[in-house]
Amino acid sequence: MKLIHDPLHGGIELDDFAVRLIDTPEFQRLRRITQLGLAYLAYPSARHTRFEHSLGTFHLAKRVRTYNPEIEEGALYAALLHDLGHYPLSHTLEALYPRHEENTRWVIKHGEIGDVIRERYSLKEFFKSLKHPLVSGDIDADRMDYLVRDAYYTGVAFGLVDMDRLIRNLRWDGERLVVSEKGVIAAQNLLLARSMMYPTVYQHHTSKIASAMLVKAVELEGISYEEIRTMDEIDLVSRLRGSEKPEVRGLMEAIDDRKLYKRVVYTNEDPGEEVVRELKKELEEEFGHLAIVDYPPKPKFEEKNAFVEVGGELKRLSEVSPLVRALVELKDTHWRWGVYAREEVREMVEVFLKKLF
Amino acid sequence: MKLIHDPLHGGIELDDFAVRLIDTPEFQRLRRITQLGLAYLAYPSARHTRFEHSLGTFHLAKRVRTYNPEIEEGALYAALLHDLGHYPLSHTLEALYPRHEENTRWVIKHGEIGDVIRERYSLKEFFKSLKHPLVSGDIDADRMDYLVRDAYYTGVAFGLVDMDRLIRNLRWDGERLVVSEKGVIAAQNLLLARSMMYPTVYQHHTSKIASAMLVKAVELEGISYEEIRTMDEIDLVSRLRGSEKPEVRGLMEAIDDRKLYKRVVYTNEDPGEEVVRELKKELEEEFGHLAIVDYPPKPKFEEKNAFVEVGGELKRLSEVSPLVRALVELKDTHWRWGVYAREEVREMVEVFLKKLF
Amino acid sequence: MKLIHDPLHGGIELDDFAVRLIDTPEFQRLRRITQLGLAYLAYPSARHTRFEHSLGTFHLAKRVRTYNPEIEEGALYAALLHDLGHYPLSHTLEALYPRHEENTRWVIKHGEIGDVIRERYSLKEFFKSLKHPLVSGDIDADRMDYLVRDAYYTGVAFGLVDMDRLIRNLRWDGERLVVSEKGVIAAQNLLLARSMMYPTVYQHHTSKIASAMLVKAVELEGISYEEIRTMDEIDLVSRLRGSEKPEVRGLMEAIDDRKLYKRVVYTNEDPGEEVVRELKKELEEEFGHLAIVDYPPKPKFEEKNAFVEVGGELKRLSEVSPLVRALVELKDTHWRWGVYAREEVREMVEVFLKKLF
Amino acid sequence: MKLIHDPLHGGIELDDFAVRLIDTPEFQRLRRITQLGLAYLAYPSARHTRFEHSLGTFHLAKRVRTYNPEIEEGALYAALLHDLGHYPLSHTLEALYPRHEENTRWVIKHGEIGDVIRERYSLKEFFKSLKHPLVSGDIDADRMDYLVRDAYYTGVAFGLVDMDRLIRNLRWDGERLVVSEKGVIAAQNLLLARSMMYPTVYQHHTSKIASAMLVKAVELEGISYEEIRTMDEIDLVSRLRGSEKPEVRGLMEAIDDRKLYKRVVYTNEDPGEEVVRELKKELEEEFGHLAIVDYPPKPKFEEKNAFVEVGGELKRLSEVSPLVRALVELKDTHWRWGVYAREEVREMVEVFLKKLF
Repeated sequence: MKLIHDPLHGGIELDDFAVRLIDTPEFQRLRRITQLGLAYLAYPSARHTRFEHSLGTFHLAKRVRTYNPEIEEGALYAALLHDLGHYPLSHTLEALYPRHEENTRWVIKHGEIGDVIRERYSLKEFFKSLKHPLVSGDIDADRMDYLVRDAYYTGVAFGLVDMDRLIRNLRWDGERLVVSEKGVIAAQNLLLARSMMYPTVYQHHTSKIASAMLVKAVELEGISYEEIRTMDEIDLVSRLRGSEKPEVRGLMEAIDDRKLYKRVVYTNEDPGEEVVRELKKELEEEFGHLAIVDYPPKPKFEEKNAFVEVGGELKRLSEVSPLVRALVELKDTHWRWGVYAREEVREMVEVFLKKLF
Repeated sequence: MKLIHDPLHGGIELDDFAVRLIDTPEFQRLRRITQLGLAYLAYPSARHTRFEHSLGTFHLAKRVRTYNPEIEEGALYAALLHDLGHYPLSHTLEALYPRHEENTRWVIKHGEIGDVIRERYSLKEFFKSLKHPLVSGDIDADRMDYLVRDAYYTGVAFGLVDMDRLIRNLRWDGERLVVSEKGVIAAQNLLLARSMMYPTVYQHHTSKIASAMLVKAVELEGISYEEIRTMDEIDLVSRLRGSEKPEVRGLMEAIDDRKLYKRVVYTNEDPGEEVVRELKKELEEEFGHLAIVDYPPKPKFEEKNAFVEVGGELKRLSEVSPLVRALVELKDTHWRWGVYAREEVREMVEVFLKKLF
Repeated sequence: MKLIHDPLHGGIELDDFAVRLIDTPEFQRLRRITQLGLAYLAYPSARHTRFEHSLGTFHLAKRVRTYNPEIEEGALYAALLHDLGHYPLSHTLEALYPRHEENTRWVIKHGEIGDVIRERYSLKEFFKSLKHPLVSGDIDADRMDYLVRDAYYTGVAFGLVDMDRLIRNLRWDGERLVVSEKGVIAAQNLLLARSMMYPTVYQHHTSKIASAMLVKAVELEGISYEEIRTMDEIDLVSRLRGSEKPEVRGLMEAIDDRKLYKRVVYTNEDPGEEVVRELKKELEEEFGHLAIVDYPPKPKFEEKNAFVEVGGELKRLSEVSPLVRALVELKDTHWRWGVYAREEVREMVEVFLKKLF
Repeated sequence: MKLIHDPLHGGIELDDFAVRLIDTPEFQRLRRITQLGLAYLAYPSARHTRFEHSLGTFHLAKRVRTYNPEIEEGALYAALLHDLGHYPLSHTLEALYPRHEENTRWVIKHGEIGDVIRERYSLKEFFKSLKHPLVSGDIDADRMDYLVRDAYYTGVAFGLVDMDRLIRNLRWDGERLVVSEKGVIAAQNLLLARSMMYPTVYQHHTSKIASAMLVKAVELEGISYEEIRTMDEIDLVSRLRGSEKPEVRGLMEAIDDRKLYKRVVYTNEDPGEEVVRELKKELEEEFGHLAIVDYPPKPKFEEKNAFVEVGGELKRLSEVSPLVRALVELKDTHWRWGVYAREEVREMVEVFLKKLF
């Protein structure tokens, strides 16, 4: 048994099997994958990694299982390993490659860690555990850890979620985790925390611009999935720094020095995917990598679908909590798409866009 | 005016000059210099960097100056920039190169940041400010920030230091910061925090072994001062990973995968520097990089020398506080030197050492 | 200068004039007035008093004034003394007597504290300061302190409000405090904190029932305004314990022993004030003090009216923040009125009520 | 099952038997017994009561038992009820009456709560449980809760004790709780926290003077053990306020208004018990209740005797930790005895004392 200190959960206990999973190159690599990607350019203290988050998810999963011992043990280790497949800077590059969940399975199949798993579980069995509602449901150990962890390291919305109360009020009904009546406010606050972090952290413009620049650099460099899937952040950044293409080196240097592109368009009005695709093409032809279009997906707020048991009946969280409904209705208010350009061409891009519309 | 969130100090306010200093490649590089080097191998959440620490030091310096407006303004910006010269992984490599304070001056002289400074101060003047007691005294803004910050991120001894009380009870007497009577306990607790973190964090064996391995790798690779002085951690690690020497690559991989050397000797008994030097030579001849000697300097606890004003008289903190005296007397109790060896040769090293003595 | 520790604000500095105001019987009495009345029957740790809250309000007022030095100094001391007139158990008994603000003026006029004030201000002037927007506006030092303090001691919604950011973004425009753009989220979260504490703390049924019982006891005992206005909680409780009327003693003992009345009606459906008044009369005739009607006013959420400056224009917080609008729309959702009865008559009251409607 | 929020421990779970014990007049009375007596005159926020502390002790006892299921269940409920016999203002009056542990047994024998206990345990059995090392050992649930709780509410030394680590490293060996090697630092810090709170909180002069005045008032009033043993703080204070003796009323009013006696003697030099007794007699004859001698016992630091298991051997904590030895050696440094006098006679007492020696 090993005890690791965590600023959120106090002491995290690791049994021997967990320790052996952690002591593999694949898991240790998570120490070099920042949880919030480039958000630290806006929140300098947001330097936490997928490593701590994975330990935290394991810890919360164990706590939920204390109250629901019928949950299969494999789900705990799935909680520990669910993020193995993240690419450097977490979600930043995910649009360019297969989703990280898919890569997690690849890493397990091909890494040392697969051998450790196979001592207890067949991989087929384990892959099923990765989809267990405790690990990947509407309210699960993963979400609970990252929402609270991100809040803690950025200072936004921290303290909002009463983790103790939530955990004590999650009941496994054989198929899913159900929030019982006394946990409704705690569950609602998960969504509240998300809705508060969405504009201020997850969609902070500094982080979005830097991320868009990085995506562009990776595209220009032409890094394949075969290459990226085992890279850590040191591999990626040193690759871009040492690129043969000056525009790639330039983008990377600009991110390093925090000399970011400027916003030409930044708006909540959605012209529709097609218009944006067209615009992107036109801009690329005209300005190359000096102007970037950033059109993120709308937020999902999946917690709203969580099942809640009120007066003996199963309902959706959004049916039960008027505040949740309000948050879901408002969720797109803070969504923004944008066009960012290098300082020198900013005005030209502006003129070009005006002509275009 | 800009406001940056910090988990320790809440909001840190930055004036325009500070913002311009921060917006230079030299300062941004500090984002990629981990405050506690490889300590995160023992305390996963200890991922804070010199960047946040520098902002925090600036913030505390400003707070002390609120109560002592006679302190020259330049000392504040010196507080902000005092760590510019740190090498990758902070103190880890300092034994191989000039002290980081010297490198700070080099960076200022040769970087963009020097140009910003020169708008307000001559470099000569500014270099003097870097030695101001507010920045580098027995009790100063630097120590206050890092002791509390390290405590926070590792969870060891956090909450011990009453920063508010200490700051309010620091008085500038024209020459130095003097702790007034009501601040004695707060000052004593700085030392207490250090004495508690010394064995558990600063000298944690995991971190010491990994550091010794890294130092060995850098020695073998033969990185010059001219090269290292502007490197960040990505530069360093990717250089070692891509080394032409297999033993360098091997050491780096072992650190990445946390497959660390094992302790053969680990003891508080000090055989004296000469014996250790001899031993080192013998071991190197026999085992090359497979066995490493780690003989760290004894801890200093400089806070004990801080001046305290009690009943109108200036005294040293150690004169006034019996607990401080006790801590100073005990300070070498937790010092350890060690010989670490790769698993495969561990027993051979043990036998060899036994023959040697 | 005196420094007092406060778990929320760290060190609170008191200048000499503040110390002299505090060192009066009228201010010391606030140590014996619980901030949240009988809420501690539901939240045992909610034992904070008007004393700490008053110090905290003073502290926050001073911090706001640091950024807005044009605010008159008198407003600070008004912040310190604004709650002098609270009755035992704070708002619990306020329906029976003049509002506590009126009593504050009475206490100042007739207490030692008035003499201290008069050394610097005329009472007329000081009474005007008590209405200063810093002390009693839509967003003011009073609200900021109590919302965060109540959150802290009950553990509900704590951490939600970024006090630092809010304070730094309050601007005095000569007439009122205006929230500037960067403070909107922090201001919104004040309202969010209130809306979260409203059902769980401020309207917790245990506290409401005990309060209704206490009000009934005080009514039966017939304590006059002349008597109550200088009482502390010890005076009140010992008076009720020692009452000549057995029903008063019985109610007090039941509160002491937490043997509370039970809910017969507890509903969000509002039958209108007239119906409730009628019902109250009928119940009183039939059951005397054994059944109590509790019909609280609807919540106000005055923060919604705070002025915000967005893009150079003054707007109301509710215009700017869709979440605030949602909270205001939902604010009556958690309002409840109730009929509570002693265990023994509970069923009889139920039957009686069914007949009545 | 009931969940109560506690600012220290998060959620405290109460089983049905615990709830029934708590729902008795004897336990509810603890809500009106302040944990730190009159310390709130120096630390306004120190308003926590024996009620919360008792819940906290129960909670910690349960956590220790999770790791040591062989501990008898009765010890848990003993932890919950161990402080039932405290007099108003906790230890303040203990010198005048039988120790509170004795009174705890009396309360159990004669109160409703005894009936609840007897459903599960014989009183004889239960009284034995009250002495269980988990409840009253050198390191026990009681000490752990109150040291951390007092630290929290006063802000002194908070955060010092790593409760998680300590609890996980307490092992029941059938006879006592033994600290295992990894818990030594956490155990040492309990003692450190005590040694830091001793001078600043437990022996704060404001609290000591007010306590000495209260003891004097109770002596003058002549309250018997039969009376005090069921009183709460409201009973006591209203009794003293309504005393027929003007000197009693005067003392009580002075405490209420915080117009405290002044220090004439306050020193670390111990003249020995006999001299002090003589002095007390002389002063009483000359000045009656206007001058009070306060000669507290020396601190005990019992944690030093805790058993620790190091390398398979049982040792005392003080043998193992040099810091603990230092603290024990220094423990009397901060002890003070004093003579306090009413402002008006202060100088006369000073002269009188000078003549006497």
